[in-house]
Amino acid sequence: MVSLKILKRSKKSRARLGILKTPHGEVETPTLVGVATQATVKALTVDQVKATGTGLLICNTFHLHLKPGEQVVKKAGGLHKFMGWKGPLMTDSGGYQVFSLGFGRDFGVGKIAHAPSKHKVGLKQQPKLLKITEEGVAFTSYLDGSRIFLTPEKSMQIQAALGADIAFAFDECTPPLADRAYTVQSMERTHRWAERCLKARDPKQAVFGIVQGSKFKDLRTLSARIIAAMPFDGFGIGGEFGYSKSDMSAMLRVVVKELPDNKPRHLLGVGHPEDLARVVKEGVDTFDCTVPTQYARHGTAFTSSGRIEITKSRYLADKKPLDPKCECSTCATYSRAYLCHLMRSKENTGGTLVTIHNLYYFQALMAKIRSDIKKGRM
Amino acid sequence: MVSLKILKRSKKSRARLGILKTPHGEVETPTLVGVATQATVKALTVDQVKATGTGLLICNTFHLHLKPGEQVVKKAGGLHKFMGWKGPLMTDSGGYQVFSLGFGRDFGVGKIAHAPSKHKVGLKQQPKLLKITEEGVAFTSYLDGSRIFLTPEKSMQIQAALGADIAFAFDECTPPLADRAYTVQSMERTHRWAERCLKARDPKQAVFGIVQGSKFKDLRTLSARIIAAMPFDGFGIGGEFGYSKSDMSAMLRVVVKELPDNKPRHLLGVGHPEDLARVVKEGVDTFDCTVPTQYARHGTAFTSSGRIEITKSRYLADKKPLDPKCECSTCATYSRAYLCHLMRSKENTGGTLVTIHNLYYFQALMAKIRSDIKKGRM
Repeated sequence: MVSLKILKRSKKSRARLGILKTPHGEVETPTLVGVATQATVKALTVDQVKATGTGLLICNTFHLHLKPGEQVVKKAGGLHKFMGWKGPLMTDSGGYQVFSLGFGRDFGVGKIAHAPSKHKVGLKQQPKLLKITEEGVAFTSYLDGSRIFLTPEKSMQIQAALGADIAFAFDECTPPLADRAYTVQSMERTHRWAERCLKARDPKQAVFGIVQGSKFKDLRTLSARIIAAMPFDGFGIGGEFGYSKSDMSAMLRVVVKELPDNKPRHLLGVGHPEDLARVVKEGVDTFDCTVPTQYARHGTAFTSSGRIEITKSRYLADKKPLDPKCECSTCATYSRAYLCHLMRSKENTGGTLVTIHNLYYFQALMAKIRSDIKKGRM
Repeated sequence: MVSLKILKRSKKSRARLGILKTPHGEVETPTLVGVATQATVKALTVDQVKATGTGLLICNTFHLHLKPGEQVVKKAGGLHKFMGWKGPLMTDSGGYQVFSLGFGRDFGVGKIAHAPSKHKVGLKQQPKLLKITEEGVAFTSYLDGSRIFLTPEKSMQIQAALGADIAFAFDECTPPLADRAYTVQSMERTHRWAERCLKARDPKQAVFGIVQGSKFKDLRTLSARIIAAMPFDGFGIGGEFGYSKSDMSAMLRVVVKELPDNKPRHLLGVGHPEDLARVVKEGVDTFDCTVPTQYARHGTAFTSSGRIEITKSRYLADKKPLDPKCECSTCATYSRAYLCHLMRSKENTGGTLVTIHNLYYFQALMAKIRSDIKKGRM
C-alpha cells in the first residue's frame, strides 16, 4: 500500500534519506508536501506544480466535503483523476479544522503560539462555532450556516471516497491556549478516535495515526507510545510544541523516539525555510505547510538572501530575478520589477509566478538536504 | 520595421493569408491578438500564452502609463523584456479609454450597441469624468483621482517608451450613442490627431493610423481615405459599425476598399467566435478582443458545440473535457467537473485553465480559417 524504504541514515542526527512508495508512484524523502486544500495548489496548474519539484500533495477533507462533496470526486474517478494529479496524494482528516474553525477562530491564533496568551482554554470549554463531543465534532458551515457533523468514521468514509494514497486519522489539533487538563482530555479522546478510525478505514487505503500532546513532554511521549502501538501505516505529528524552535526540536525528539523506525513520519503544518533542516534532523520524512504558497500570493518571496516583499515600490526599478541563484522558471524569465508591477496591479499571474518560485525554492532546499544526508553531512 | 507579406488571396472574398513581419519575429495572418492590458494576459504566464498558439499581444498604453508608468518599463529594457514576451507586441493608444472612461461609463454601454438607445451624445457634449479638447483628453484617474492629460504627442511618447513593435495613433473611439454631428466633430479631430501622431512618432517604431466614422457609411469612407493617405505602417479600424453583424461586414467593406492593399489592417476590439470568419472575409489581418480571456474568468468556455457556463452545478457530474474535440492542455488533463469545482470554489486556477482553453480554441479557429484560405475555401 504505502511503505518507506530507508536508503541512508545520518550519523550525527536522526535524519534519514528514503523513498516513500505509494500506489501512485514514489517520492524521495525527506520532502515538502504541497498543500492543495481544495484539490488545487492555489494559483497553479498540475504541470506548474510538477515543475517545482513537488512530488506529493495534501488535500483537505473538510473543504472537499463541503465543496464539491466527496461523492462528486468519487464519481469523477477519485481525487487523482479529478484533479489531474498522477503522483502520490494525501488527505488530512478535518482535525485541523476542529482547531482552526474552533478555538483558533475564537481567539485569533494559529496552531503555533509564539508566546503565552492571556486567553486560556480549560477543561470542558467549547469553541463558539462548533461542539466537540466523544462522538465527534459538530461544525457550523462558514459557507451557508448548515451543520456538519464529523466523526472518526465519517472522516474515514470521506477520505476513502476521495481515494488519496494516504488518509489521516481524525483528531483534535490541540489549541496552543489549552491548559494541561484540556490537553489530556483532548489527547485521550484523539486516541479513542484513532481506534475508531482503524475500525472504519478502507483496508485498501494507507492511514496515518496522529500524535498529539501539545507542549507537554510527558503527554507527547504517552501519545506517541499509544498511537505507535496501533496498526497504522505511518504517523502524523500534530499540534503545537511550545514557544521556540528548540522547543519544537525537543518535542519532535521525544515523539520520534517512540515511533517505529520503519514507518513514515509526517509533520503536520510546519515549514518556514529555517525549519526544514531542523525537522529533518529529528527524523521527519514528510511535512506540509502553506507558507510557500500562501506567502507567495501575498507577495513574500523566499530567496537565498532572505525574504523579499515584492509589492514594495522600490522593486519596480529592480531588474534582477527574485533570486539570482534560483533556477525556477519565474527567475529564468521575469524580473522583480515585473513581479512587483503584477502584484501591485492585482494581476493573478503575479501570485502564480511567486508561488512557482517559492515552491521551487523550498524543494531546492529539500534536495540540498537530501544530498547532505547522502554525503553524510547532516 | 513592420511589413505584411501576402501569401494568398481568397477569390470569393477579400480574405488574405499573410505573414506579419516585425522586429520581434513573424506571425501568420489572419490572427487573433491576445489582450495583455497590464502587460500580462490575465491569469496566464507567457509560456501558457505561447502554448495557446497566440503569437501577437496588445498592451494598453493608458493602463501602463498609470501602473507601473512607462519609465519603469523603459528602464526595464522595454515592454518585451519587462513582460518576458519575445514575440511581436502592439500597444493601443489610449483612444479606447477616451470612450470607455467617458461616455461608455456615463451611459453604461460598450463600444458596440445592439439597438438604438434613448441616450444621445450630441455636438460639444462632454463626458462626466474627462474633457475632450482639440489639444487632447483630460482624464481623472480612477485609481487616485489625479488628473492625466493625454495628447497625441504624449500617447506617442508613452508608446515609444514602452517600445512595442507596433503603436497606434491616438484617437477618440466614437461612442455608439453619438449623433452624426458629434461623430463628424470627433472624426475630424481624430484625423488632425493622426497627423500630430505622425509628427511625434518614434521613427524606429511602426505606427498604425485609426479609421473612425462610426455607423455612417459615408463618414467611414471619408475617414478611411484620409487616414490611408497618411504615411502609416498599417491601419486600425476602430469604433462601432451599427446594430448587426451584417452592418459590421458592410462597414468593414467600405473601409477596407480605401486602405492600401500592401499594408496590415487591424480591427480593434472585435471577436466573438462567430465574428472571426466574417471579419477575415472583409480583409482584416489582425484583431484583438477580450472575449476569450474575460469570458473565461467568468466561467464561459467556447467550444465546438457552443458556449458552456462551467460554473453551473450540473457540470460537477460531467467527466468530459470542456470540448472533446479540443487539443489544448486543459482539455487533455481536466474534466468539466473539476473546472466547475475550481470556479465555484473561487480558485484562480479555474480562470487560468479556462483562459488557456478559450485562447487555444480561438486560435484553432483562426488556424482553420488560414488553412481554408490556403485551400481556396474561403
